[in-house]
Amino acid sequence: MEYGKYLKTNERVDDLQRDGLKIIQNPDGFCFGMDAVLLSSFANAKNGDTVVDLGTGTGIIPLLLSAKTKANKIHGFEIQSNVADMASRSVLMNHLEDKIRIINDDLKNALKYITSSSVDVITSNPPYMVVGTGGVSPKRSVSRHEITCSLEDVILCASKLLKTKGKMFLVHRANRMVDVINIMRKHSIEPKRLRCVHPFEDREANLILVEAVKNAGRELKIIKPLIVRNSKGQYTEEIYAIYEDAGVGSFG
Amino acid sequence: MEYGKYLKTNERVDDLQRDGLKIIQNPDGFCFGMDAVLLSSFANAKNGDTVVDLGTGTGIIPLLLSAKTKANKIHGFEIQSNVADMASRSVLMNHLEDKIRIINDDLKNALKYITSSSVDVITSNPPYMVVGTGGVSPKRSVSRHEITCSLEDVILCASKLLKTKGKMFLVHRANRMVDVINIMRKHSIEPKRLRCVHPFEDREANLILVEAVKNAGRELKIIKPLIVRNSKGQYTEEIYAIYEDAGVGSFG
Repeated sequence: MEYGKYLKTNERVDDLQRDGLKIIQNPDGFCFGMDAVLLSSFANAKNGDTVVDLGTGTGIIPLLLSAKTKANKIHGFEIQSNVADMASRSVLMNHLEDKIRIINDDLKNALKYITSSSVDVITSNPPYMVVGTGGVSPKRSVSRHEITCSLEDVILCASKLLKTKGKMFLVHRANRMVDVINIMRKHSIEPKRLRCVHPFEDREANLILVEAVKNAGRELKIIKPLIVRNSKGQYTEEIYAIYEDAGVGSFG
Repeated sequence: MEYGKYLKTNERVDDLQRDGLKIIQNPDGFCFGMDAVLLSSFANAKNGDTVVDLGTGTGIIPLLLSAKTKANKIHGFEIQSNVADMASRSVLMNHLEDKIRIINDDLKNALKYITSSSVDVITSNPPYMVVGTGGVSPKRSVSRHEITCSLEDVILCASKLLKTKGKMFLVHRANRMVDVINIMRKHSIEPKRLRCVHPFEDREANLILVEAVKNAGRELKIIKPLIVRNSKGQYTEEIYAIYEDAGVGSFG
Protein backbone atom coordinates (compact mmCIF):
# COMPACT_ATOMS: atom_id res chain seq x y z
CA MET A 1 0.00 0.00 0.00
CA GLU A 2 1.24 3.46 -0.87
CA TYR A 3 1.14 6.11 1.84
CA GLY A 4 3.33 8.63 0.02
CA LYS A 5 0.42 10.90 -0.79
CA TYR A 6 -0.19 11.41 2.93
CA LEU A 7 3.42 12.31 3.78
CA LYS A 8 5.43 15.53 3.88
CA THR A 9 9.22 15.91 4.09
CA ASN A 10 10.96 13.99 6.89
CA GLU A 11 7.78 12.17 7.85
CA ARG A 12 7.38 8.43 8.05
CA VAL A 13 4.54 5.97 8.55
CA ASP A 14 4.73 3.67 11.57
CA ASP A 15 2.61 0.57 11.99
CA LEU A 16 0.77 0.50 15.33
CA GLN A 17 0.29 -3.28 14.91
CA ARG A 18 -3.31 -3.18 15.92
CA ASP A 19 -6.28 -3.36 13.56
CA GLY A 20 -3.93 -2.31 10.75
CA LEU A 21 -3.54 1.17 12.28
CA LYS A 22 -0.76 3.41 11.04
CA ILE A 23 0.50 6.75 12.31
CA ILE A 24 2.44 9.52 10.61
CA GLN A 25 5.39 10.67 12.68
CA ASN A 26 8.35 12.95 12.19
CA PRO A 27 11.52 11.57 13.77
CA ASP A 28 12.70 15.15 14.01
CA GLY A 29 10.55 16.01 16.99
CA PHE A 30 7.06 14.59 16.78
CA CYS A 31 6.92 10.97 17.84
CA PHE A 32 4.72 9.58 20.57
CA GLY A 33 6.31 8.39 23.79
CA MET A 34 5.61 5.80 26.43
CA ASP A 35 3.45 8.26 28.37
CA ALA A 36 0.87 8.29 25.54
CA VAL A 37 0.78 4.49 25.44
CA LEU A 38 0.42 4.26 29.23
CA LEU A 39 -2.40 6.81 29.17
CA SER A 40 -4.24 4.95 26.40
CA SER A 41 -3.93 1.75 28.40
CA PHE A 42 -5.08 3.43 31.63
CA ALA A 43 -8.05 5.16 29.98
CA ASN A 44 -11.28 3.53 28.96
CA ALA A 45 -14.53 4.52 27.30
CA LYS A 46 -17.88 2.82 26.95
CA ASN A 47 -19.86 1.95 23.88
CA GLY A 48 -21.15 5.14 22.27
CA ASP A 49 -19.13 7.55 24.41
CA THR A 50 -18.00 10.95 23.26
CA VAL A 51 -14.27 11.36 23.93
CA VAL A 52 -12.09 14.48 23.75
CA ASP A 53 -8.28 14.41 23.77
CA LEU A 54 -6.79 17.75 24.81
CA GLY A 55 -3.42 18.45 23.18
CA THR A 56 -3.56 15.46 20.87
CA GLY A 57 -0.20 15.91 19.12
CA THR A 58 0.11 13.44 16.26
CA GLY A 59 -3.20 11.87 17.28
CA ILE A 60 -1.74 8.78 18.94
CA ILE A 61 -4.31 8.70 21.76
CA PRO A 62 -7.39 9.04 19.51
CA LEU A 63 -5.93 6.37 17.20
CA LEU A 64 -5.24 3.92 20.04
CA LEU A 65 -8.61 4.58 21.71
CA SER A 66 -10.44 4.10 18.41
CA ALA A 67 -9.07 0.55 18.34
CA LYS A 68 -9.41 -0.19 22.06
CA THR A 69 -12.87 1.22 22.75
CA LYS A 70 -16.28 1.50 21.15
CA ALA A 71 -16.39 5.24 21.61
CA ASN A 72 -18.74 6.89 19.13
CA LYS A 73 -16.63 9.95 18.41
CA ILE A 74 -13.17 11.09 19.45
CA HIS A 75 -12.24 14.76 19.10
CA GLY A 76 -8.59 15.74 19.35
CA PHE A 77 -7.57 19.37 19.96
CA GLU A 78 -4.14 20.44 18.79
CA ILE A 79 -3.04 24.07 18.60
CA GLN A 80 0.12 23.56 16.50
CA SER A 81 -1.04 23.59 12.89
CA ASN A 82 1.80 21.45 11.52
CA VAL A 83 1.21 18.75 14.14
CA ALA A 84 -2.58 18.89 13.80
CA ASP A 85 -2.07 18.48 10.08
CA MET A 86 -0.02 15.31 10.62
CA ALA A 87 -2.76 13.99 12.92
CA SER A 88 -5.47 14.77 10.37
CA ARG A 89 -3.56 12.96 7.64
CA SER A 90 -3.13 9.93 9.93
CA VAL A 91 -6.90 9.89 10.44
CA LEU A 92 -7.50 9.99 6.70
CA MET A 93 -4.86 7.36 6.01
CA ASN A 94 -6.64 5.03 8.46
CA HIS A 95 -10.09 5.88 7.05
CA LEU A 96 -11.20 6.93 10.52
CA GLU A 97 -12.63 10.32 9.56
CA ASP A 98 -16.11 9.29 10.72
CA LYS A 99 -14.79 8.41 14.16
CA ILE A 100 -11.93 10.86 14.83
CA ARG A 101 -12.02 14.61 14.31
CA ILE A 102 -8.81 16.62 14.71
CA ILE A 103 -9.51 20.24 15.62
CA ASN A 104 -6.67 22.65 14.99
CA ASP A 105 -7.46 25.27 17.58
CA ASP A 106 -6.63 26.36 21.09
CA LEU A 107 -8.39 24.13 23.63
CA LYS A 108 -9.52 27.32 25.34
CA ASN A 109 -11.92 27.60 22.38
CA ALA A 110 -13.30 24.08 22.87
CA LEU A 111 -16.84 25.27 23.55
CA LYS A 112 -16.98 26.65 19.99
CA TYR A 113 -16.89 23.05 18.79
CA ILE A 114 -18.37 20.91 21.57
CA THR A 115 -21.38 21.50 23.82
CA SER A 116 -20.56 22.06 27.47
CA SER A 117 -21.30 19.18 29.89
CA SER A 118 -21.73 16.76 26.99
CA VAL A 119 -18.52 14.72 27.05
CA ASP A 120 -18.13 11.27 28.64
CA VAL A 121 -14.35 10.94 28.63
CA ILE A 122 -11.46 13.40 28.42
CA THR A 123 -7.88 12.30 27.93
CA SER A 124 -4.82 14.50 28.09
CA ASN A 125 -1.07 14.16 27.93
CA PRO A 126 -0.42 17.89 28.28
CA PRO A 127 2.83 19.86 28.18
CA TYR A 128 4.69 18.93 31.34
CA MET A 129 6.91 21.85 32.08
CA VAL A 130 6.14 25.25 33.47
CA VAL A 131 7.54 27.94 31.19
CA GLY A 132 10.98 28.99 32.35
CA THR A 133 12.00 25.52 33.53
CA GLY A 134 14.03 22.92 31.67
CA GLY A 135 15.77 23.45 28.36
CA VAL A 136 13.34 24.78 25.81
CA SER A 137 13.85 23.06 22.47
CA PRO A 138 12.43 25.55 19.96
CA LYS A 139 10.92 22.85 17.79
CA ARG A 140 9.15 20.92 20.51
CA SER A 141 8.64 23.65 23.06
CA VAL A 142 4.88 23.97 22.52
CA SER A 143 4.44 20.22 23.01
CA ARG A 144 6.61 20.14 26.11
CA HIS A 145 6.13 23.47 27.87
CA GLU A 146 3.04 25.26 29.01
CA ILE A 147 3.45 27.97 26.40
CA THR A 148 0.04 27.96 24.80
CA CYS A 149 -1.86 26.50 27.74
CA SER A 150 -1.29 25.87 31.41
CA LEU A 151 -2.25 22.75 33.33
CA GLU A 152 -5.13 24.76 34.75
CA ASP A 153 -6.35 25.64 31.22
CA VAL A 154 -6.45 21.92 30.39
CA ILE A 155 -8.32 20.95 33.55
CA LEU A 156 -10.71 23.90 33.37
CA CYS A 157 -11.52 22.95 29.77
CA ALA A 158 -12.13 19.34 30.85
CA SER A 159 -14.40 20.53 33.64
CA LYS A 160 -16.52 22.57 31.22
CA LEU A 161 -16.80 19.76 28.69
CA LEU A 162 -17.45 16.80 31.00
CA LYS A 163 -20.91 15.74 32.02
CA THR A 164 -21.48 14.87 35.67
CA LYS A 165 -19.74 11.54 36.36
CA GLY A 166 -17.76 11.95 33.14
CA LYS A 167 -14.13 10.89 33.48
CA MET A 168 -10.82 12.57 32.88
CA PHE A 169 -7.67 10.47 32.32
CA LEU A 170 -4.43 12.41 32.62
CA VAL A 171 -0.75 11.52 32.48
CA HIS A 172 1.67 14.00 33.99
CA ARG A 173 5.04 14.31 35.65
CA ALA A 174 5.08 12.88 39.15
CA ASN A 175 6.78 15.98 40.53
CA ARG A 176 3.70 18.05 39.64
CA MET A 177 1.18 15.80 41.35
CA VAL A 178 0.29 18.40 43.97
CA ASP A 179 -0.61 20.89 41.22
CA VAL A 180 -2.63 18.29 39.33
CA ILE A 181 -4.64 17.24 42.36
CA ASN A 182 -5.26 20.75 43.65
CA ILE A 183 -6.40 22.10 40.30
CA MET A 184 -8.63 19.10 39.63
CA ARG A 185 -10.51 19.48 42.89
CA LYS A 186 -10.72 23.26 42.39
CA HIS A 187 -12.62 22.60 39.17
CA SER A 188 -14.86 19.81 40.54
CA ILE A 189 -12.98 16.98 38.89
CA GLU A 190 -12.26 14.67 41.81
CA PRO A 191 -9.22 12.38 41.57
CA LYS A 192 -10.49 8.82 42.13
CA ARG A 193 -7.70 6.56 40.92
CA LEU A 194 -3.96 7.21 40.93
CA ARG A 195 -1.13 5.10 39.59
CA CYS A 196 2.50 6.02 40.11
CA VAL A 197 4.91 4.98 37.36
CA HIS A 198 8.43 4.17 38.53
CA PRO A 199 11.25 3.65 35.98
CA PHE A 200 12.65 0.99 38.34
CA GLU A 201 11.21 -0.59 41.49
CA ASP A 202 13.57 1.29 43.78
CA ARG A 203 13.43 4.69 42.08
CA GLU A 204 11.24 7.73 42.42
CA ALA A 205 8.15 7.83 40.23
CA ASN A 206 8.58 9.94 37.10
CA LEU A 207 4.98 9.83 35.87
CA ILE A 208 1.52 9.65 37.36
CA LEU A 209 -1.68 8.41 35.78
CA VAL A 210 -4.81 9.97 37.23
CA GLU A 211 -8.46 9.07 36.70
CA ALA A 212 -10.76 11.81 37.95
CA VAL A 213 -14.54 12.08 37.87
CA LYS A 214 -16.65 15.22 37.46
CA ASN A 215 -18.66 16.04 40.60
CA ALA A 216 -17.71 12.78 42.34
CA GLY A 217 -17.38 12.07 46.05
CA ARG A 218 -14.08 12.23 47.85
CA GLU A 219 -12.17 9.00 47.99
CA LEU A 220 -9.00 8.11 46.17
CA LYS A 221 -7.65 4.68 45.29
CA ILE A 222 -3.87 4.53 44.87
CA ILE A 223 -3.51 1.38 42.82
CA LYS A 224 -0.41 -0.78 42.61
CA PRO A 225 2.62 1.00 41.21
CA LEU A 226 3.63 0.46 37.61
CA ILE A 227 7.29 -0.52 37.35
CA VAL A 228 8.78 0.06 33.88
CA ARG A 229 12.03 -1.93 34.04
CA ASN A 230 13.30 -4.75 36.25
CA SER A 231 16.63 -4.65 38.05
CA LYS A 232 18.35 -5.97 34.89
CA GLY A 233 17.09 -2.98 32.92
CA GLN A 234 14.57 -5.03 30.92
CA TYR A 235 10.98 -3.94 30.45
CA THR A 236 8.68 -5.63 32.94
CA GLU A 237 6.02 -8.09 31.88
CA GLU A 238 3.36 -5.50 32.57
CA ILE A 239 4.97 -2.99 30.20
CA TYR A 240 5.13 -5.65 27.49
CA ALA A 241 1.48 -6.48 28.15
CA ILE A 242 0.46 -2.82 27.92
CA TYR A 243 2.25 -2.38 24.60
CA GLU A 244 0.79 -5.60 23.29
CA ASP A 245 -2.69 -4.61 24.41
CA ALA A 246 -2.33 -1.16 22.85
CA GLY A 247 -1.10 -2.88 19.72
CA VAL A 248 2.03 -0.75 19.72
CA GLY A 249 4.78 -3.00 18.53
CA SER A 250 7.83 -0.81 19.02
CA PHE A 251 8.81 0.97 22.18
CA GLY A 252 8.62 4.73 22.01
CA MET B 1 12.90 -3.55 87.66
CA GLU B 2 9.46 -2.78 89.02
CA TYR B 3 7.11 -0.73 86.90
CA GLY B 4 3.99 -1.45 88.94
CA LYS B 5 3.90 2.05 90.42
CA TYR B 6 3.46 3.50 86.92
CA LEU B 7 0.58 1.22 85.92
CA LYS B 8 -3.21 1.38 86.21
CA THR B 9 -5.72 -1.44 85.72
CA ASN B 10 -5.43 -3.42 82.47
CA GLU B 11 -2.23 -1.67 81.50
CA ARG B 12 1.04 -3.38 80.66
CA VAL B 13 4.61 -2.35 79.99
CA ASP B 14 6.09 -3.23 76.60
CA ASP B 15 9.79 -3.15 75.83
CA LEU B 16 10.59 -1.08 72.72
CA GLN B 17 13.97 -2.86 72.49
CA ARG B 18 15.89 0.30 71.84
CA ASP B 19 17.94 2.20 74.40
CA GLY B 20 16.01 0.35 77.11
CA LEU B 21 12.82 2.24 76.22
CA LYS B 22 9.51 0.99 77.60
CA ILE B 23 5.96 2.05 76.84
CA ILE B 24 2.75 1.71 78.82
CA GLN B 25 -0.09 0.31 76.72
CA ASN B 26 -3.60 -0.92 77.34
CA PRO B 27 -4.46 -3.96 75.24
CA ASP B 28 -8.07 -2.90 75.54
CA GLY B 29 -7.80 -0.15 72.97
CA PHE B 30 -4.64 1.86 73.27
CA CYS B 31 -1.71 0.17 71.58
CA PHE B 32 0.42 1.68 68.88
CA GLY B 33 0.18 0.30 65.37
CA MET B 34 2.44 -0.07 62.38
CA ASP B 35 1.50 3.40 61.15
CA ALA B 36 3.22 5.00 64.16
CA VAL B 37 6.37 2.95 63.57
CA LEU B 38 6.41 3.80 59.85
CA LEU B 39 5.96 7.49 60.64
CA SER B 40 8.79 7.45 63.19
CA SER B 41 11.02 5.80 60.63
CA PHE B 42 10.01 8.24 57.87
CA ALA B 43 10.47 11.33 60.07
CA ASN B 44 13.74 12.87 61.07
CA ALA B 45 14.96 15.77 63.17
CA LYS B 46 18.29 17.49 63.52
CA ASN B 47 20.45 18.05 66.55
CA GLY B 48 18.76 20.57 68.84
CA ASP B 49 15.42 20.64 66.99
CA THR B 50 12.11 21.39 68.64
CA VAL B 51 9.58 18.72 67.70
CA VAL B 52 5.81 18.63 68.25
CA ASP B 53 3.68 15.49 67.86
CA LEU B 54 0.01 16.33 67.29
CA GLY B 55 -2.34 13.68 68.71
CA THR B 56 0.39 11.72 70.45
CA GLY B 57 -1.74 8.92 71.91
CA THR B 58 0.37 6.78 74.23
CA GLY B 59 3.45 8.79 73.26
CA ILE B 60 4.95 6.20 70.94
CA ILE B 61 6.23 8.75 68.41
CA PRO B 62 7.96 11.03 70.96
CA LEU B 63 9.49 7.96 72.59
CA LEU B 64 10.83 6.56 69.31
CA LEU B 65 12.05 9.97 68.11
CA SER B 66 13.82 10.59 71.43
CA ALA B 67 15.91 7.50 70.71
CA LYS B 68 16.34 8.04 66.97
CA THR B 69 17.13 11.77 66.87
CA LYS B 70 19.02 14.41 68.82
CA ALA B 71 15.99 16.65 69.07
CA ASN B 72 16.26 19.00 72.01
CA LYS B 73 12.62 18.86 73.08
CA ILE B 74 9.61 16.86 71.94
CA HIS B 75 6.12 18.07 72.85
CA GLY B 76 3.19 15.69 72.45
CA PHE B 77 -0.40 16.98 72.42
CA GLU B 78 -3.12 14.56 73.44
CA ILE B 79 -6.69 15.64 74.19
CA GLN B 80 -7.91 12.42 75.86
CA SER B 81 -6.89 12.71 79.51
CA ASN B 82 -6.65 8.97 80.18
CA VAL B 83 -4.38 8.45 77.16
CA ALA B 84 -2.29 11.55 77.89
CA ASP B 85 -1.89 10.21 81.41
CA MET B 86 -0.54 6.89 80.11
CA ALA B 87 1.88 8.80 77.87
CA SER B 88 3.07 10.98 80.77
CA ARG B 89 3.69 7.93 82.93
CA SER B 90 5.68 6.33 80.10
CA VAL B 91 7.84 9.46 79.94
CA LEU B 92 8.47 9.32 83.69
CA MET B 93 9.15 5.59 83.63
CA ASN B 94 11.83 6.20 80.97
CA HIS B 95 13.25 9.23 82.84
CA LEU B 96 12.72 11.34 79.74
CA GLU B 97 10.87 14.21 81.42
CA ASP B 98 13.61 16.70 80.42
CA LYS B 99 13.23 15.75 76.77
CA ILE B 100 9.54 14.89 76.28
CA ARG B 101 6.58 16.94 77.50
CA ILE B 102 3.06 15.51 77.16
CA ILE B 103 0.43 18.25 77.00
CA ASN B 104 -3.12 17.16 77.81
CA ASP B 105 -5.02 19.73 75.80
CA ASP B 106 -6.73 20.29 72.49
CA LEU B 107 -4.16 20.94 69.78
CA LYS B 108 -6.27 23.93 68.78
CA ASN B 109 -4.83 25.52 71.95
CA ALA B 110 -1.23 24.79 70.96
CA LEU B 111 -0.22 28.46 70.85
CA LYS B 112 -0.91 28.68 74.60
CA TYR B 113 2.07 26.39 75.11
CA ILE B 114 4.39 26.92 72.15
CA THR B 115 5.43 30.09 70.34
CA SER B 116 4.17 30.40 66.79
CA SER B 117 6.70 29.84 63.96
CA SER B 118 9.18 28.33 66.41
CA VAL B 119 8.99 24.60 65.67
CA ASP B 120 11.41 22.67 63.44
CA VAL B 121 9.51 19.41 63.04
CA ILE B 122 5.88 18.37 63.42
CA THR B 123 4.77 14.76 63.37
CA SER B 124 1.19 13.52 63.31
CA ASN B 125 -0.68 10.25 63.05
CA PRO B 126 -4.10 11.86 63.33
CA PRO B 127 -7.56 10.28 63.48
CA TYR B 128 -8.17 8.84 60.04
CA MET B 129 -11.89 8.78 59.64
CA VAL B 130 -14.35 11.55 58.95
CA VAL B 131 -17.13 11.49 61.55
CA GLY B 132 -20.05 9.45 60.27
CA THR B 133 -17.93 6.92 58.39
CA GLY B 134 -16.82 3.50 59.56
CA GLY B 135 -17.94 1.80 62.72
CA VAL B 136 -17.39 4.06 65.70
CA SER B 137 -15.96 2.06 68.59
CA PRO B 138 -16.92 4.14 71.64
CA LYS B 139 -13.67 3.47 73.41
CA ARG B 140 -11.34 4.30 70.58
CA SER B 141 -13.48 6.71 68.63
CA VAL B 142 -11.53 9.85 69.57
CA SER B 143 -8.28 8.23 68.46
CA ARG B 144 -9.75 6.98 65.21
CA HIS B 145 -12.36 9.51 64.14
CA GLU B 146 -12.15 13.25 63.64
CA ILE B 147 -14.35 13.93 66.65
CA THR B 148 -12.21 16.41 68.53
CA CYS B 149 -10.22 17.68 65.57
CA SER B 150 -10.39 17.52 61.81
CA LEU B 151 -7.50 16.93 59.44
CA GLU B 152 -7.62 20.65 58.70
CA ASP B 153 -7.29 21.48 62.41
CA VAL B 154 -4.12 19.37 62.57
CA ILE B 155 -2.56 20.92 59.47
CA LEU B 156 -3.58 24.47 60.43
CA CYS B 157 -1.98 23.94 63.85
CA ALA B 158 1.19 22.64 62.19
CA SER B 159 1.27 25.65 59.88
CA LYS B 160 1.06 28.05 62.83
CA LEU B 161 3.75 26.28 64.82
CA LEU B 162 6.30 25.59 62.08
CA LYS B 163 9.04 28.02 61.21
CA THR B 164 9.74 28.67 57.53
CA LYS B 165 11.39 25.52 56.08
CA GLY B 166 10.22 23.57 59.12
CA LYS B 167 8.97 20.07 58.26
CA MET B 168 5.75 18.20 58.83
CA PHE B 169 5.70 14.38 58.71
CA LEU B 170 2.24 12.87 58.46
CA VAL B 171 0.86 9.36 58.09
CA HIS B 172 -2.70 9.04 56.82
CA ARG B 173 -5.04 6.77 54.95
CA ALA B 174 -4.24 6.58 51.26
CA ASN B 175 -7.86 7.16 50.30
CA ARG B 176 -7.69 10.66 51.84
CA MET B 177 -4.59 11.77 50.00
CA VAL B 178 -6.44 14.41 48.00
CA ASP B 179 -7.68 16.03 51.22
CA VAL B 180 -4.22 15.87 52.80
CA ILE B 181 -2.50 17.48 49.83
CA ASN B 182 -5.12 20.16 49.27
CA ILE B 183 -5.24 21.22 52.89
CA MET B 184 -1.46 21.25 53.22
CA ARG B 185 -1.01 23.58 50.27
CA LYS B 186 -3.91 25.75 51.47
CA HIS B 187 -1.97 26.35 54.68
CA SER B 188 1.46 26.88 53.04
CA ILE B 189 2.83 23.48 53.97
CA GLU B 190 4.01 22.15 50.63
CA PRO B 191 4.16 18.37 50.15
CA LYS B 192 7.71 17.54 49.07
CA ARG B 193 8.08 13.79 49.59
CA LEU B 194 5.41 11.12 49.35
CA ARG B 195 5.62 7.42 50.02
CA CYS B 196 2.73 5.07 49.33
CA VAL B 197 2.45 2.03 51.59
CA HIS B 198 0.98 -1.07 49.95
CA PRO B 199 0.04 -4.11 52.10
CA PHE B 200 1.16 -6.29 49.17
CA GLU B 201 2.99 -5.41 45.96
CA ASP B 202 -0.12 -5.89 43.82
CA ARG B 203 -2.66 -4.20 46.10
CA GLU B 204 -3.90 -0.67 46.53
CA ALA B 205 -2.00 1.50 48.99
CA ASN B 206 -3.66 1.74 52.39
CA LEU B 207 -1.39 4.39 53.92
CA ILE B 208 0.60 7.37 52.75
CA LEU B 209 3.61 8.99 54.39
CA VAL B 210 4.00 12.67 53.54
CA GLU B 211 6.87 15.04 54.24
CA ALA B 212 5.86 18.65 53.74
CA VAL B 213 7.80 21.87 54.22
CA LYS B 214 6.51 25.25 55.38
CA ASN B 215 6.69 27.89 52.64
CA ALA B 216 8.62 25.63 50.28
CA GLY B 217 8.67 25.64 46.48
CA ARG B 218 6.44 23.37 44.44
CA GLU B 219 7.99 20.07 43.53
CA LEU B 220 7.07 16.67 44.86
CA LYS B 221 9.17 13.52 44.96
CA ILE B 222 7.16 10.28 44.98
CA ILE B 223 9.70 7.89 46.38
CA LYS B 224 9.70 4.13 45.91
CA PRO B 225 6.66 2.39 47.30
CA LEU B 226 6.84 0.62 50.65
CA ILE B 227 5.57 -2.94 50.37
CA VAL B 228 4.56 -4.48 53.72
CA ARG B 229 4.31 -8.18 52.89
CA ASN B 230 5.66 -10.36 50.11
CA SER B 231 3.51 -12.70 48.05
CA LYS B 232 3.87 -15.40 50.73
CA GLY B 233 2.37 -13.06 53.31
CA GLN B 234 5.67 -12.53 55.15
CA TYR B 235 6.87 -9.09 56.15
CA THR B 236 9.34 -7.71 53.63
CA GLU B 237 12.98 -7.09 54.47
CA GLU B 238 12.33 -3.37 54.52
CA ILE B 239 9.61 -3.72 57.13
CA TYR B 240 11.93 -5.82 59.30
CA ALA B 241 14.64 -3.19 58.84
CA ILE B 242 12.26 -0.38 59.83
CA TYR B 243 11.20 -2.21 63.00
CA GLU B 244 14.79 -3.03 63.82
CA ASP B 245 15.84 0.56 63.22
CA ALA B 246 13.01 1.87 65.35
CA GLY B 247 13.98 -0.66 67.99
CA VAL B 248 10.45 -2.00 68.07
CA GLY B 249 10.79 -5.71 68.54
CA SER B 250 7.21 -6.88 68.21
CA PHE B 251 4.89 -6.16 65.33
CA GLY B 252 1.92 -3.96 66.12
